Amino acid sequence: MKSLASDNYAGALPEVIEAITAVNIDHAPSYGSDPVTQRTKTLIQDVFGSKDAEILFVFNGTGANVLSITAAAQSFNSILCADTSHIYNDESSAPETISGCRFFPLPANEHGKLSAETVSRRLIRKGDVHYAQPKLLSVTQSTEYGTVYTPDEIKSLSEITRANDMFLHMDGSRFWNAAAGLHVNLREISTDAGVDILSLGGTKLGLLFGEAVIVFNKKLAETIRFRQKQVMQLASKTRFIAAQFEAILTNELWRKTATHANQMAQLLADGLKEFNQVIITKPVEANVVFAEIPLAWNEPLMQQIPFYVWQEHTNEVRLMCAWDTKKEEIRQFIDAVRNL
Amino acid sequence: MKSLASDNYAGALPEVIEAITAVNIDHAPSYGSDPVTQRTKTLIQDVFGSKDAEILFVFNGTGANVLSITAAAQSFNSILCADTSHIYNDESSAPETISGCRFFPLPANEHGKLSAETVSRRLIRKGDVHYAQPKLLSVTQSTEYGTVYTPDEIKSLSEITRANDMFLHMDGSRFWNAAAGLHVNLREISTDAGVDILSLGGTKLGLLFGEAVIVFNKKLAETIRFRQKQVMQLASKTRFIAAQFEAILTNELWRKTATHANQMAQLLADGLKEFNQVIITKPVEANVVFAEIPLAWNEPLMQQIPFYVWQEHTNEVRLMCAWDTKKEEIRQFIDAVRNL
Amino acid sequence: MKSLASDNYAGALPEVIEAITAVNIDHAPSYGSDPVTQRTKTLIQDVFGSKDAEILFVFNGTGANVLSITAAAQSFNSILCADTSHIYNDESSAPETISGCRFFPLPANEHGKLSAETVSRRLIRKGDVHYAQPKLLSVTQSTEYGTVYTPDEIKSLSEITRANDMFLHMDGSRFWNAAAGLHVNLREISTDAGVDILSLGGTKLGLLFGEAVIVFNKKLAETIRFRQKQVMQLASKTRFIAAQFEAILTNELWRKTATHANQMAQLLADGLKEFNQVIITKPVEANVVFAEIPLAWNEPLMQQIPFYVWQEHTNEVRLMCAWDTKKEEIRQFIDAVRNL
Amino acid sequence: MKSLASDNYAGALPEVIEAITAVNIDHAPSYGSDPVTQRTKTLIQDVFGSKDAEILFVFNGTGANVLSITAAAQSFNSILCADTSHIYNDESSAPETISGCRFFPLPANEHGKLSAETVSRRLIRKGDVHYAQPKLLSVTQSTEYGTVYTPDEIKSLSEITRANDMFLHMDGSRFWNAAAGLHVNLREISTDAGVDILSLGGTKLGLLFGEAVIVFNKKLAETIRFRQKQVMQLASKTRFIAAQFEAILTNELWRKTATHANQMAQLLADGLKEFNQVIITKPVEANVVFAEIPLAWNEPLMQQIPFYVWQEHTNEVRLMCAWDTKKEEIRQFIDAVRNL
Repeated sequence: MKSLASDNYAGALPEVIEAITAVNIDHAPSYGSDPVTQRTKTLIQDVFGSKDAEILFVFNGTGANVLSITAAAQSFNSILCADTSHIYNDESSAPETISGCRFFPLPANEHGKLSAETVSRRLIRKGDVHYAQPKLLSVTQSTEYGTVYTPDEIKSLSEITRANDMFLHMDGSRFWNAAAGLHVNLREISTDAGVDILSLGGTKLGLLFGEAVIVFNKKLAETIRFRQKQVMQLASKTRFIAAQFEAILTNELWRKTATHANQMAQLLADGLKEFNQVIITKPVEANVVFAEIPLAWNEPLMQQIPFYVWQEHTNEVRLMCAWDTKKEEIRQFIDAVRNL
Repeated sequence: MKSLASDNYAGALPEVIEAITAVNIDHAPSYGSDPVTQRTKTLIQDVFGSKDAEILFVFNGTGANVLSITAAAQSFNSILCADTSHIYNDESSAPETISGCRFFPLPANEHGKLSAETVSRRLIRKGDVHYAQPKLLSVTQSTEYGTVYTPDEIKSLSEITRANDMFLHMDGSRFWNAAAGLHVNLREISTDAGVDILSLGGTKLGLLFGEAVIVFNKKLAETIRFRQKQVMQLASKTRFIAAQFEAILTNELWRKTATHANQMAQLLADGLKEFNQVIITKPVEANVVFAEIPLAWNEPLMQQIPFYVWQEHTNEVRLMCAWDTKKEEIRQFIDAVRNL
Repeated sequence: MKSLASDNYAGALPEVIEAITAVNIDHAPSYGSDPVTQRTKTLIQDVFGSKDAEILFVFNGTGANVLSITAAAQSFNSILCADTSHIYNDESSAPETISGCRFFPLPANEHGKLSAETVSRRLIRKGDVHYAQPKLLSVTQSTEYGTVYTPDEIKSLSEITRANDMFLHMDGSRFWNAAAGLHVNLREISTDAGVDILSLGGTKLGLLFGEAVIVFNKKLAETIRFRQKQVMQLASKTRFIAAQFEAILTNELWRKTATHANQMAQLLADGLKEFNQVIITKPVEANVVFAEIPLAWNEPLMQQIPFYVWQEHTNEVRLMCAWDTKKEEIRQFIDAVRNL
Repeated sequence: MKSLASDNYAGALPEVIEAITAVNIDHAPSYGSDPVTQRTKTLIQDVFGSKDAEILFVFNGTGANVLSITAAAQSFNSILCADTSHIYNDESSAPETISGCRFFPLPANEHGKLSAETVSRRLIRKGDVHYAQPKLLSVTQSTEYGTVYTPDEIKSLSEITRANDMFLHMDGSRFWNAAAGLHVNLREISTDAGVDILSLGGTKLGLLFGEAVIVFNKKLAETIRFRQKQVMQLASKTRFIAAQFEAILTNELWRKTATHANQMAQLLADGLKEFNQVIITKPVEANVVFAEIPLAWNEPLMQQIPFYVWQEHTNEVRLMCAWDTKKEEIRQFIDAVRNL
């Protein structure tokens, strides 16, 4: 049974399985010193246009985010993020427990994005020892609402962080969908836009498991190798994460994959627009549709294709497309709505 | 090129790849609520003879160990372990950073094991707020020296921990090799011997990645689900870890695999005994041989088959066998020694 | 030079100095086992009507708050507090670094208080491992705005926390001023109102240094002695903190002292009301006045009697009275305003 | 009743009470910006011959030690210390909980001191991410056994730390007794000997409460102000700690006081030497005597003057002298022994 519940309900891309099988030969040095890991790092540096970027392959998204935080902030610092962000609402207290830092949630706009002005307003009490000093701004690309920051929007944020002796972190668990939706190269919304450190997702695009942290700012690279081990995100057989990334980067498989998921979301949104009872609540810029639907629809629809209720009081639902979502499944969902 | 450097230099068992491929169909609920994960938990409960055991699939060994600690100890507690243990020497400061606890290393005997008497001597100053109160004893099975604790030895340790309101943790990254070496069932050196919580290795036996934490003592199970997420060891596509464990448990594939690695170590030790210049320094009870060899041998031998120097001042080397170590490779190594 | 900047600019009450001098004789067992500490604990238990309360003398307010948190919450929990609270804005990241918990700030009402409804709305996602589970509600009495929670308001909050398996913490750095302002006994806004654990201030009332943590709920008392040492809040010469508390509790010295400071605030507010350009922004219920004044007044007034600007964009200032604030000083301040 | 149990059983010096009373006038800015704190910092800089030293007044010894660690080490670092040290045995898990660092205890020699050679041997695995990287060496002056490091011994340790990109911390809870015992100035065993950061005790010398952290190495001073607040060691009415330090530094009151305590220990040791059944086990170089005495003596002697049993199996006892220990009390103790 397919679902629109989450892109991590999907399995792995066939190319990913092939890549793992292909490198599953012989012995290879562990903890990242194998040739597959080395060549994939070089590939990532090339693709992101950042020859000196430090790259670390990790297990999961929370691990990638927490590693990024510990590399950028000391324990007396605070982290600024959107009040709607995954890092604030869905990663337990992992960031605090491991980094010691305080989080200051900032009000996201209706599209789940932070504006430069919102961030600036919170940059108060500099040098005041009683106030956990802001050191890192974390934004999500694409956002939890499936919207995307444009290159200019990211630049306006990185200008603020740079001017205030802070760093810009991007939680890119669906970074690929943002790049595909914007029709840009990966570097245009990272390297070129002033991002200091990126959590680059893998699992939601179609890996078995595995994410990467890409460190563009050399200041953050100094000790991050030590921190990766310390935060329990150093795989012994690293080649099996690296090979998956190599697969999705080769011939821009990621773009084909992410574009497909985005198109399925678009198709779904277009189909839903014909129903008066449905309100599409967010711009559909990546691989997800947010919509308010009648409460009575939930049960019959979920029986056919599961999805999440996002806001109970408005019955806003989240319909997430994955790499393996098929046109027929979208049509089937639309038909199911029509038959209600 | 094969090596005797580490069992995590080896790739994954063919059955493991097959298992992953087999479950890579359709969508499955994430974070452990999928049917593959559920049935594998039941399988583990059966094999370990512990119907109520809580089972958590995690990413790596450090993660399994740290999760176990946080489930058993509060931050004002101390952890007792062997001064030779992996958890004390090879996991950075991860245990302290995440649990907040203090570690008290105890002197291991010449075989890398802790005796009941050694543990008892450290159980001092109970109730003294100035002294980090011992709450958890952690032992490694098989040990870092490739020796094994017998069921009775484990029982003598669990009697002490139980009598002193403490818990017994077993770091079982090579638990299978111990069971194979002892010719016992898994439960005889865990469930039946009074182990409260077990880090059950997977990677070193031949998984792509993935370990499990098995909680035998219900007191430790109460909050561990929350802690698993918090310590960043909750995989979204959990089925891909579970399926690998299912593969190695089915038809006792683990025993076949671990026994093979153990036999290769035995073959290697037997072969080395013929050389006067070699001293086998530890009993060969699992899949590794420790031996003092002439310093001049290191370079020419390592060029053919890499391995680790364990103690520089005595040139004690560690020769680790894996699931894919072949008889011919052992013979080739012995020949290389002979040709020196 | 006196000031209206903070009640911690004031020195110590003469009775406090006398009390310290009186117990500065002979040797006394350290770390709380001396007779002065013991008899003061009994006195506190009597005054608060809680024979079993655990009492811990600590160094400062942040220490008292953090100790309370670690006694009540595990590291995967979250803490709810007002977005205006001291614990959220003025204690660096101490609570997170030491407890590991996440903070969820809730919108305080215009008087800096949390309503039962506001708290209830945040009690979401119970049992969801991805969400740091709420375990402690922390409120400030008197609040950062100098307002007070009535006994009934506190009860309505403790009903919610009890019903939701949570605890209620009160940050009482100015607890005495609240009790004096409400004309109640200490127990009516703590023991009898369902408070589980109280940070009872000392310094701001007129101690040299020293606060207390009073644990009403036995569940929180189990391990708190160990945590006090662990969070570095265990004084060796405890008698010198205890004696100060004994002094302020004897003959209700605290009420005389707090009432005086409250009256000075009332006098100040009354005096300021005569000026059209001044807006008293919060009810004056304890020892502080918040007022919007013309920006141009700041400099000439501060030269005579220093105070804090609280909100820069409205030029809302905070005028804090202490135990040693004199009527003449208030008159002098009013005169200074008049002469502008 | 006087005791030989601990120097923190003693009260405060009369000069300390006078100093507090003298500064208990008017209002003073809080959190260290008052004139008493400022002038005392200058005084300390003068006395230690370190014009740029950063000085922080804190509450207690554990706080001073933990603050020093957090200023010097990151959470993936390890701390080296003597296995006999207070920081390892008597501060709960405070250092780990707050710094996240691992501790590696090193074998102290029979006098409780670390040799340069012992430290050097542990400086292994540099750059290995699996090994918590040593960054700080902590030694105690005078040691837990009442012995002292000579200036040359300290220099030999600081040469090692400097050569290995590490820092040298001195736990000086009885620093004054060491300086008095060595007949040196304070700077000769700190500033001039290469100490990077010093926990300078106050309470055990005769303060009510209060210790200081002196940062000689500018690298450690960068963020320590923020950390002081974060680790809950920033007093609001700082003047009352500073004034006490001013008192003991003025006219070298500390030397008079520490010398007296040292002399009482010497007197006690001399008296005990006449008894064949007593073995003085450590050189008496500060204010404490360690001696093995017959077990049967403990009870009758403790009834007159309490003391601690240090090693139960040898009945080695610790007899600690304080600023207020009187000659008659020593004679009384010797008489009590004689009368047994």
